[in-house]
Amino acid sequence: MYNYKMIIAYDGTRYIGWQRQATDPLKTIQGKLEHILSLLFDEEISVTASGRTDAGVHAIGQVANFQTKLYKSPEEILNYMAKYLSNDISIVELKLASERFHARYNCKYKMYSYTIDTGLFPNPFQTRFAYHFSESLDLENMKKAASYLLGTHDFKSFTSMKSKKKSTVRTITDIDITQVGSSIVIYYRGDGFLQHMVRILTGTLIEVGTGNRSPEDILHLLEVQKRSESGYTVPPHGLCLQKVEY
Amino acid sequence: MYNYKMIIAYDGTRYIGWQRQATDPLKTIQGKLEHILSLLFDEEISVTASGRTDAGVHAIGQVANFQTKLYKSPEEILNYMAKYLSNDISIVELKLASERFHARYNCKYKMYSYTIDTGLFPNPFQTRFAYHFSESLDLENMKKAASYLLGTHDFKSFTSMKSKKKSTVRTITDIDITQVGSSIVIYYRGDGFLQHMVRILTGTLIEVGTGNRSPEDILHLLEVQKRSESGYTVPPHGLCLQKVEY
Repeated sequence: MYNYKMIIAYDGTRYIGWQRQATDPLKTIQGKLEHILSLLFDEEISVTASGRTDAGVHAIGQVANFQTKLYKSPEEILNYMAKYLSNDISIVELKLASERFHARYNCKYKMYSYTIDTGLFPNPFQTRFAYHFSESLDLENMKKAASYLLGTHDFKSFTSMKSKKKSTVRTITDIDITQVGSSIVIYYRGDGFLQHMVRILTGTLIEVGTGNRSPEDILHLLEVQKRSESGYTVPPHGLCLQKVEY
Repeated sequence: MYNYKMIIAYDGTRYIGWQRQATDPLKTIQGKLEHILSLLFDEEISVTASGRTDAGVHAIGQVANFQTKLYKSPEEILNYMAKYLSNDISIVELKLASERFHARYNCKYKMYSYTIDTGLFPNPFQTRFAYHFSESLDLENMKKAASYLLGTHDFKSFTSMKSKKKSTVRTITDIDITQVGSSIVIYYRGDGFLQHMVRILTGTLIEVGTGNRSPEDILHLLEVQKRSESGYTVPPHGLCLQKVEY
C-alpha cells in the first residue's frame, strides 16, 4: 500500500462540511476528493482528514491522507485533480508519506482563525470569509478573557456536544487577537477542539468585547460546565482551519 | 443643492456593471445606489461615477457624486445605506463636496489592477477576484512589453470601441507588475482607459509572458491600430478599479 499525505485549502461556502454524507457525498469535501481519486486509481479510495470541518467552514491547511494499491507520482495525481476538482478546493501539497502516517491520530496541534468584520459596511471582498458584526469591541478585555482560556480545562460550557461519555478536556496553547483595519482575527491553537468550540468561544469573547460579560466570567464558565451559560455560536463562515501540526 | 462625494467598493460578480440599465436597474451598482438614496431623500437622485465599470468588474476605490435638495448629515446617510445596501457594495467614505465637484469631468488619473492566478489549482479564496491562468509567465518580458505602452499613444489596437469619432489617444503613466506567491497583479495608471482597454492590454501582456509574442510586438500594435492584431480580452473578474485621482 502507498500512503499519500496532502494539504488542502477550501472555500467551504457551497459544502455541507468536510465529512462524506451518504445522501449527498458530492456536497462534502471528503466526498469530492474520494470521488476523483477513486476514478484516477480505479479503486475505492478513503480520505482521512485531521478532523471534520462543519458546513460553511473554510480551510487553508487541512491535512488528510489516503492509501492506494497502485503507485502514481504526486505530479500525475496533482495534474489529474487540478483538471477535475472544482475551483473552491485546492491541493496545496501532496506527497508520499510513511505507511504509518495517519492524519487524525497523529495530529498534535491545530490552529483555527475566526474573522470578524467590524466595519459599518461589510468588506465586499470578505463577505464569504468574515462574520460582519459592526459594533465596537474592547480588544483589551477580549484579550484578558482569552488569557483565562489558556491551558488545560474542561470545555463543556463551550461545546454543543451532548455525549457524556467522551472527554471534554482540551488544552489551548495560544489565543492571539489581532486587528487589521476593521477586521479582527482571533487565532486559536490547541491540541483539539470540540464540536462548535471555536465558534462558541468566539461568541463568548464577542460578548466580553461588547461589555455584556466581564473577562472574569470565563472563570465562572470553566467552572460551571454548562453550555446554556456561555455565549452564542457565531456563524460558520468566519471560521478557517489554518494549520495542522504533527 | 448639496453635492456629496463618495468612495465605493464593490464585488461586481452579481452585477451587469456600474451603469444603470432601464430594463433591470437593480442589477447595476448605480441603480442600487440611486434607488436607496432616492428613498432616503424622497427625491430622484442621480449618481455620477468617475466612469462605468463593466459587468463582473470590481472596485476598491470607485468615486461618485450626487446632488440633493435636502441636507442630511454624512453619518445619517451612511447609517441608512449600511442598513439597506446589499453586502457586496460598501461606502468607504462619504462627505459633502464643493458644488462644482464632478466625479467624471474632474477625474485626472485612474488606477486599475488585474490579478492573474498562475497556480496549478486556483486559490479558492480568490476565485471571484483573480483570473486563473496556470501557465508560467516570463515577467521580465512582460515588464519590457509594458514599458513600450507608457506615455501618450493612440490605443486603437487595444479597445473594442467601434466609434471612429471619439479619440482613442490616452496616456498611461505607470504599469507595475508584481508577483506575490502564485498571484501576478498588473497595476495600470493613466488619464483614462477605453472600453475593454485594460483587459485587452492584459491579454496581450499574457501572450508576451507565454512567449507567443515578443515585447517589441507592442510597438507594432501601437503603430497598426487594429484590434484584430492585439491579444485576447481577459475575463472581467480579475479587474478592479483601485483608485481615482482628482
